[in-house]
Amino acid sequence: MKSNILAWLEEGNITIPSILLSEYRNLNLNETELVLLLNILTFIEKGNEFPTPEELSARMTVSILECNEMLRRLIQRGFIEIIDQYSNDGIRFEKYTVKPLWEKLIDLFMINNNAAKAMDKKTDET
Amino acid sequence: MKSNILAWLEEGNITIPSILLSEYRNLNLNETELVLLLNILTFIEKGNEFPTPEELSARMTVSILECNEMLRRLIQRGFIEIIDQYSNDGIRFEKYTVKPLWEKLIDLFMINNNAAKAMDKKTDET
Amino acid sequence: MKSNILAWLEEGNITIPSILLSEYRNLNLNETELVLLLNILTFIEKGNEFPTPEELSARMTVSILECNEMLRRLIQRGFIEIIDQYSNDGIRFEKYTVKPLWEKLIDLFMINNNAAKAMDKKTDET
Amino acid sequence: MKSNILAWLEEGNITIPSILLSEYRNLNLNETELVLLLNILTFIEKGNEFPTPEELSARMTVSILECNEMLRRLIQRGFIEIIDQYSNDGIRFEKYTVKPLWEKLIDLFMINNNAAKAMDKKTDET
Repeated sequence: MKSNILAWLEEGNITIPSILLSEYRNLNLNETELVLLLNILTFIEKGNEFPTPEELSARMTVSILECNEMLRRLIQRGFIEIIDQYSNDGIRFEKYTVKPLWEKLIDLFMINNNAAKAMDKKTDET
Repeated sequence: MKSNILAWLEEGNITIPSILLSEYRNLNLNETELVLLLNILTFIEKGNEFPTPEELSARMTVSILECNEMLRRLIQRGFIEIIDQYSNDGIRFEKYTVKPLWEKLIDLFMINNNAAKAMDKKTDET
Repeated sequence: MKSNILAWLEEGNITIPSILLSEYRNLNLNETELVLLLNILTFIEKGNEFPTPEELSARMTVSILECNEMLRRLIQRGFIEIIDQYSNDGIRFEKYTVKPLWEKLIDLFMINNNAAKAMDKKTDET
Repeated sequence: MKSNILAWLEEGNITIPSILLSEYRNLNLNETELVLLLNILTFIEKGNEFPTPEELSARMTVSILECNEMLRRLIQRGFIEIIDQYSNDGIRFEKYTVKPLWEKLIDLFMINNNAAKAMDKKTDET
């Protein structure tokens, strides 16, 4: 009984900014692309920084080929990047970073935020 | 500058069990349904416990009609429920609960967890 | 068995910026004050926006009197604020906001961040 | 401006079960011990799985000596454990695990939960 809660707890959580859910559409992402990005984040969080299309597709309703194509397009459109890393013993490995996604989201957030402020100011003046 | 980080912080986060992302497919949910559920969770977290199909559709790539239909099917299939509540002054209002989703996820988790344990035991015995 | 995990899940989580834990000391907070603030956050998250010294002290190792005194000092030193709210039926109620804490933390973060950048620049120039 | 939000975002969050905050006192932990445990969790989350007393003390209001003594006592009382790990190239290293803390918390949660259920049942019967 106890071990079940512990196992559940050890699976862990993923914490994402609420605005990713309210704004992904305005970033021109659809639901499948959003979930692919969330799955990449979950894999990274668990220590697998370069999940394969096979691993991602296995938990999604898209085929490996479609998954591969989506990854290619997300890189091309600047949502994720593959970066090179070197381990302590000098071996090169690749990993995903979703930093470009956060940059796009922050850009959008700041445009909205400043537009809201400008409108407040205008309302005050009239 | 500072006010931008504060505004970002105030938007808040949403925390979800990692296994929802790895197991939604095994619950027979597709990506659009998963994101709809995540959006309902986000609305609830922000204090709007009964978001309309209009509000949900506005941040998704599905029409209001499709959204409405998806909500109906998710209720029918036992992923969400509408429950009645009464405010302090006796006014009835409705709200969503995703408790049935968590119940399904926990059921699945426990089946997997016990299967894994049974397999460990078998390996030990041979 | 299942109901235990569900009950656990329903207790929920609290998500805090990691830098609050690495920087509270630099905000001149001690561990007891930090935990008091985290407890206020937890109460707010659960819908109780104005926990009493009794409620806070009940889960801490400090007396009601000490708790009251700490709250008074945290308000005086500008970490929390009590703000007035009006319910739909016009009844006034008070609630805590920890916005001042976030403002202090962001100020500190930006000083550190800019100092780090300035140092990087200096290193580049030499 | 934007880079400040990104830097803030990259610092990350730490997510903890709300009941740790409401029940640490019933686990016979005081506020300083709780914050020490939260700091260990934060270090682990960031990839440093064996923070030194120096690193922990640097962000707390306790001396290195006191920190060391607290760690020793938390191990002795069964809240944390040091476990051995081997890296890919066979080098042994030590790391902390807070699994014993979660076990204690789950034990306490289940006692409370079952006591609450038993009381409900009793009330129903009368």
